[in-house]
Amino acid sequence: MTPGLAKMILYHHPMSASSRFVRLMLSEYGVDVELYEERPWERRPSFLAISPGASLPVLVDQSGYPVVGAFPLAEYLDETRGAMARDRRLMPDYPLARAEVRRLVDWFLVKLESDVTRALVRERVFKLEMPAQSGGGSPNSAALRGARANMRQHMRYLDWLAGTRDWLGAKTISLADLAAAAAISVLDYMGEVPWAEAQHAPDWYSRVKSRPSFRPLLNERVRGLPPVSHYADLDF
Amino acid sequence: MTPGLAKMILYHHPMSASSRFVRLMLSEYGVDVELYEERPWERRPSFLAISPGASLPVLVDQSGYPVVGAFPLAEYLDETRGAMARDRRLMPDYPLARAEVRRLVDWFLVKLESDVTRALVRERVFKLEMPAQSGGGSPNSAALRGARANMRQHMRYLDWLAGTRDWLGAKTISLADLAAAAAISVLDYMGEVPWAEAQHAPDWYSRVKSRPSFRPLLNERVRGLPPVSHYADLDF
Repeated sequence: MTPGLAKMILYHHPMSASSRFVRLMLSEYGVDVELYEERPWERRPSFLAISPGASLPVLVDQSGYPVVGAFPLAEYLDETRGAMARDRRLMPDYPLARAEVRRLVDWFLVKLESDVTRALVRERVFKLEMPAQSGGGSPNSAALRGARANMRQHMRYLDWLAGTRDWLGAKTISLADLAAAAAISVLDYMGEVPWAEAQHAPDWYSRVKSRPSFRPLLNERVRGLPPVSHYADLDF
Repeated sequence: MTPGLAKMILYHHPMSASSRFVRLMLSEYGVDVELYEERPWERRPSFLAISPGASLPVLVDQSGYPVVGAFPLAEYLDETRGAMARDRRLMPDYPLARAEVRRLVDWFLVKLESDVTRALVRERVFKLEMPAQSGGGSPNSAALRGARANMRQHMRYLDWLAGTRDWLGAKTISLADLAAAAAISVLDYMGEVPWAEAQHAPDWYSRVKSRPSFRPLLNERVRGLPPVSHYADLDF
């Protein structure tokens, strides 16, 4: 941060995988932001004015200009911070290698989200806080069952990636690891990660979650839903 | 293309908005590829080996290396072609302006896709060709109704964008216009675009669809489902 300038603001939700991904990226690049917890289901008019689909996260820079969504934000931060970070850059140097990292960011923040994470977070977390007229209430057990079945397939793929590569997307830690770990951490909080079916993923995940950037995420708690006991344990 | 090298191959489906988006981009940058029509529901093992989620499109370069998915492909082509295309580059020069283009690419290829396009294409096109055991059969009318209601909301936003800006994402034509027009063209083929509710979107769309890159898309036909009569009309 340049002294004298206001901090940037990040609109986020603690159980949004995309929000966690961007928070990890900001922290890895040493960018200090002010966090504002947004509840997307409230559809606040002033939030919809900057994010018409109520998508999270949104970064508002010092000039008041918003950057909306995980994928635009990842590229924006890569261009404005990553490119200057030399060997701490979270993207490889070559276009084909970058494409593989982006494929996995998309996999964990769009596909895993739509197959698994969105439904579990909605049913088990958002519904606790939502009023009945916005769709709050008890979880839909068919939705939970479907998401959990999908999660077993996703676990197999994550475990295969972790077993065949040092890091998921590149030779060193990259945005692919942050995206995967962000999503896994949301699921793990709720006890929805079938670790018993994995051989290689636990070692990969404990390497990512031991990073200082992860600490603030592991210390957050959702009201009315304590995390499973191993959640913040660095060498489970 | 360098003479003597095999062409790159693009695995695509004519009714996949993301596939159309990448085909437009390739054509705008003068990249000639061999097209291979993939039916994602067949889950061909050799296709799953390069695209584990059966995502489309996939570009396989001359060395056999795949680039999977619209978002990694858009960035890959921007880095390897767009950056050299000077004033024909489909991305603006400044990071914040690029973020706005990416937000809209995401809006049309992820949000519109998940709110509207995916359900209408599945119910009205894929089910015609799918065998019953893969989910083929007659359309689910609740799914059609939900998608059409969402489309009216999306049309309002598209119309607002088209009415307040020369092009959707930047001062000149950009990836945002290609993404939006790719998705709209899939919906328009099926007569699912509520043009009567729009004031500004028709002018924007006819400017995009008049480009030479659009012609091959407008000439394609889906077996058993002819397009609506105005579909290929350049000044409807």
